[in-house]
Amino acid sequence: MSHLLVLNAGSSSLKFGLFQSGPGDPQALVTGLVERIGGAARLVLTGPDGDRLAQTDLPARHAQDHHGALHAALAEVETRFPEAEITAVGHRVVHGGRDFADPMELTPDVIARLETLVPFAPLHQPHNLAGVQAAMAEFPQARQVACFDTAFHRSHPFVNDTFALPRAYYDKGVRRYGFHGLSYDYISGALAEMAPTLHKGRVVVAHLGNGASMCGMLAGRSLASTMGFSALDGLPMGTRSGQVDPGVLLYLMEQEGMDAAAISDLLYKKSGLLGLSGISHDMRTLEESDDPHARQAIDYFTFRIRRELGGLAAALDGLDAVVFTGGIGENSARIRHQVCSGMGWIGIELDEDANAQNASVISSDLGRVRVMVIPTNEELVIARAAARLAGG
Amino acid sequence: MSHLLVLNAGSSSLKFGLFQSGPGDPQALVTGLVERIGGAARLVLTGPDGDRLAQTDLPARHAQDHHGALHAALAEVETRFPEAEITAVGHRVVHGGRDFADPMELTPDVIARLETLVPFAPLHQPHNLAGVQAAMAEFPQARQVACFDTAFHRSHPFVNDTFALPRAYYDKGVRRYGFHGLSYDYISGALAEMAPTLHKGRVVVAHLGNGASMCGMLAGRSLASTMGFSALDGLPMGTRSGQVDPGVLLYLMEQEGMDAAAISDLLYKKSGLLGLSGISHDMRTLEESDDPHARQAIDYFTFRIRRELGGLAAALDGLDAVVFTGGIGENSARIRHQVCSGMGWIGIELDEDANAQNASVISSDLGRVRVMVIPTNEELVIARAAARLAGG
Repeated sequence: MSHLLVLNAGSSSLKFGLFQSGPGDPQALVTGLVERIGGAARLVLTGPDGDRLAQTDLPARHAQDHHGALHAALAEVETRFPEAEITAVGHRVVHGGRDFADPMELTPDVIARLETLVPFAPLHQPHNLAGVQAAMAEFPQARQVACFDTAFHRSHPFVNDTFALPRAYYDKGVRRYGFHGLSYDYISGALAEMAPTLHKGRVVVAHLGNGASMCGMLAGRSLASTMGFSALDGLPMGTRSGQVDPGVLLYLMEQEGMDAAAISDLLYKKSGLLGLSGISHDMRTLEESDDPHARQAIDYFTFRIRRELGGLAAALDGLDAVVFTGGIGENSARIRHQVCSGMGWIGIELDEDANAQNASVISSDLGRVRVMVIPTNEELVIARAAARLAGG
Repeated sequence: MSHLLVLNAGSSSLKFGLFQSGPGDPQALVTGLVERIGGAARLVLTGPDGDRLAQTDLPARHAQDHHGALHAALAEVETRFPEAEITAVGHRVVHGGRDFADPMELTPDVIARLETLVPFAPLHQPHNLAGVQAAMAEFPQARQVACFDTAFHRSHPFVNDTFALPRAYYDKGVRRYGFHGLSYDYISGALAEMAPTLHKGRVVVAHLGNGASMCGMLAGRSLASTMGFSALDGLPMGTRSGQVDPGVLLYLMEQEGMDAAAISDLLYKKSGLLGLSGISHDMRTLEESDDPHARQAIDYFTFRIRRELGGLAAALDGLDAVVFTGGIGENSARIRHQVCSGMGWIGIELDEDANAQNASVISSDLGRVRVMVIPTNEELVIARAAARLAGG
């Protein structure tokens, strides 16, 4: 029996999943998460129906780095599925650069090319590639497949791919790559099944999680994204700033004497919802808070989503549907309500009851624009690619 | 007879105007421009009907700095209007910080407060304040009045005034100030006269010149702008980048070893239309060019305007009118056409004949949104403020 392992290594977390390949979509047997790597790491294991199978604090020797986390995850998988025969490992790799528009088998040549992209994603790409090396050592017989967060956006036209910098920067790769491509890929496929007519139209997908971005799709392909060169741009996030005037960075350098490491730490780790609220990066905590700064952080978050929604509609020459996904997008009725309030001018009218229930369709019949909630599944997108390339 | 002198000192230019105050609006007697200060400086003098009165290359001793340029300008004014009795000098000052929402008489206290804002606008504020000092020395009896590019935007709600940075930065003044406020102030007043019903509605003004920004107005007041903390953000400009992912600046620092001065030079002077085209910062030159890079630079410029137009409409909960102003906005039918094409979804339909003639109203009756062209007049806004404060 042939199995697929999916690995998604973040800066302090490792998501993984074991899938059984078959004639149709790969079937998840178990998915898991190791979080707080480098600290008090914890492993959570979830069954195919979303039931929690286990939650364990990791011993220190497994908690220190991604290698340890991978071993702990694999030990759990092997204990529960001793017969599993892993023929392919699918990896989420944040950056595929300007060339990789599709999943790729990780040959030495491909790995070497991905290493040259580390300067474009210094906080993420090294973790992804470390995960690849660890999996190659663990499963030397299996095919290793990379799925890129940037790949889905390689269809951007030039005006959505460039900045107004001297052209030499574009030529050397300073482009609006866009990220969260695995999530958008999943949503595009799900929409094609659920609502094929809408899928052919002008759709904005809001992937709202601890990281957040939006994608404008035309006929299921990415035309524009709020994220650009890095995972900093666009919407504010849990701890990331989102869009910031470049003049602010010059000010931080000139007036506050900050270097790149200090600015990077500020913009990636201390800004966003955490920075504005002074309370938490976690939307659930902010929603429960009575502090006016928590409310202001939420208001800023939803305002920027509204503004980008208008901007992406302009990029698409109009709007037929909006899809909310990601942890916040799937679960926060309040955020969806705030985003959609006052958007009647663009044809958005919520059905507040449906919204409160996180229903699939939350727009009222009064609105021209269909508003939907679709849970994303990045791991399945990776498993599909791994199955396809391993079978080929 | 009482006269008003208006001074608008840019980084390498000095605009000036002599106005006669009276019971109604101040009347321009002559306006002028010294350009290319520090290089082959040239003085152009224009009469009240737009007729060119003189154009002279300045001698080297007047061409080197703003002080020399001011002397040359005043010599021309005094030769032509020897009887002029200047009772007030109105200055354009780029930055009024978070406190100045109206024109202010330049007392020593006000000047001291404006000097503290130099870190927020290091490329512009010092020139403005140097102009103030020169005018005080020249006209010790006259009242000196400052009009701020930021003042018109002080009505922004919090979500349009902040970035998602730790709140301490907001408190110390890292805010979305917005600029071109004198131009927006003029347009708001002109619209109130020309179309009072529209003026009460949701209006986006596109100030498109060598510097460029857009302002979303509700009932004539600024609710949002594309420019933020500095004059770099938002739309691409002649040589300025406009919106850039903050991750690009981190990349320039970390990977290219650039310091603040080098990045500032890149983003302020080598980017925008010049950087993307590799040909010119001047829209007229690009429009005349057959080079595909010139076309791409124009396409990027108009695409970003469209995207911001959608975003500002979202900030305003819809759109009733668009006003084009500034050198490009007033004169380029092609740019207006490209911006408005495919915007039928938001209610914009151009009357292409009216557009070709730079008519006041260029929208067709088929569209719900009124599109207008209104020549701006920042100098008149300054003269009005100087007259008002000098008379008080």
